[in-house]
Amino acid sequence: MEKELLEDYRFGRQQLIEIWGHACAVAITKAFPLPSLPRKQPTVLVVCGPAQNGAIGLVCARHLRIFDYEPTIFYPKRSPDPLYRDFTTQCEKMDIPFLAFPLPSLPRKQPTVLVVCGPAQNGAIGLVCARHLRIFDYEPTIFYPKRSPDPLYRDFTTQFFALSGWDAEAGGSGGISPDVLVSLSAPKECARRFLGRQHFVAGRFLPYDVQKKFELNPPEYPGTECVVALRAPQQ
Amino acid sequence: MEKELLEDYRFGRQQLIEIWGHACAVAITKAFPLPSLPRKQPTVLVVCGPAQNGAIGLVCARHLRIFDYEPTIFYPKRSPDPLYRDFTTQCEKMDIPFLAFPLPSLPRKQPTVLVVCGPAQNGAIGLVCARHLRIFDYEPTIFYPKRSPDPLYRDFTTQFFALSGWDAEAGGSGGISPDVLVSLSAPKECARRFLGRQHFVAGRFLPYDVQKKFELNPPEYPGTECVVALRAPQQ
Repeated sequence: MEKELLEDYRFGRQQLIEIWGHACAVAITKAFPLPSLPRKQPTVLVVCGPAQNGAIGLVCARHLRIFDYEPTIFYPKRSPDPLYRDFTTQCEKMDIPFLAFPLPSLPRKQPTVLVVCGPAQNGAIGLVCARHLRIFDYEPTIFYPKRSPDPLYRDFTTQFFALSGWDAEAGGSGGISPDVLVSLSAPKECARRFLGRQHFVAGRFLPYDVQKKFELNPPEYPGTECVVALRAPQQ
Repeated sequence: MEKELLEDYRFGRQQLIEIWGHACAVAITKAFPLPSLPRKQPTVLVVCGPAQNGAIGLVCARHLRIFDYEPTIFYPKRSPDPLYRDFTTQCEKMDIPFLAFPLPSLPRKQPTVLVVCGPAQNGAIGLVCARHLRIFDYEPTIFYPKRSPDPLYRDFTTQFFALSGWDAEAGGSGGISPDVLVSLSAPKECARRFLGRQHFVAGRFLPYDVQKKFELNPPEYPGTECVVALRAPQQ
């Protein structure tokens, strides 16, 4: 479908990534509203792979910053694609912090990383980060001496959010079982295995002929919303 | 400011035009909500010049279609820029009609056009179209034998919407006095002369350093809104 959007409908890659990244950020504001976040610092860790979904993550982080969240980006395998580099620069210029574990600097055979987690919020980010390092072929070891008793930090590692291509990038589910899922155009095959809390679809921008051809049965999007939840949150 | 966004912040032209076109469509949904439109057919005429604001109009029309409006595009001086051609194709593939008055087909010296307006809705569109033809250097003559008594059609010519660069493209105000104005990043000089009903600003996406440097004093944008009205509608 994406090929058709690019070739026949003359959408641009930059345009699609911007549309999808914005939609992801809007979905996150719905799944994790600002007032519901634990602390004064509404931190979100955005983990970006080297392929297109990673670039969408970069755009998502930028829009989260616009929506008054405090995203931190973890983007260890940076793509050399100039388009993706531009999206990276946009984030850097917005003063969004990047976690620094550049893969090429590590010994190839054993890319070990010691993740030192303090008891405060940054420690919780470290935990999430360590789990994702595994997916990116690192060998993280966690040093977490003063474990926080805060249940929110304990929960933090289970509250997360994935794009519908999550298994494609991770190679199998990779032990990832997201709370919230965004399908960028239409629910993909892997969405059948989704057992989380909320499933958003962000395919409103699709031309009708594409929706028809691929039998998408698009949901009703209210007002000017770019995403809609297929599964209501279980309170 | 736009130069800085493109060069230093590495925004792409395609990306900016998509962001701005979407914001314009959202502003139109606020200024002219679907239920407030006169007829069953919620028609909007989108008049596009050959420069960047015209491309933004094309994106705006596409999003209006997504929001269940029925846009018609009037784009007589088509730009040869491949980026703008792609935005045009996206609209064509969404089955958005284009009014056909291609400028190059007319005799250069006297590009006369006879605009025949019936008493129904298409006639009202013709009136708006004729006025805009003047701005694009045409010499329209209106043939409107059965004038509609419908006050909505009489009003239609005065209810309209412009981007903040409107005078730049038209060369002076060109007799245009829009009801609704959208400033894409920040209110421009010409906005001082704006006497219309609503003035929207769509600069939320701007990096903070840009807002600071250009002393934009950005308004508060609620939730995930990409536009905000500076002047409340006068009921």
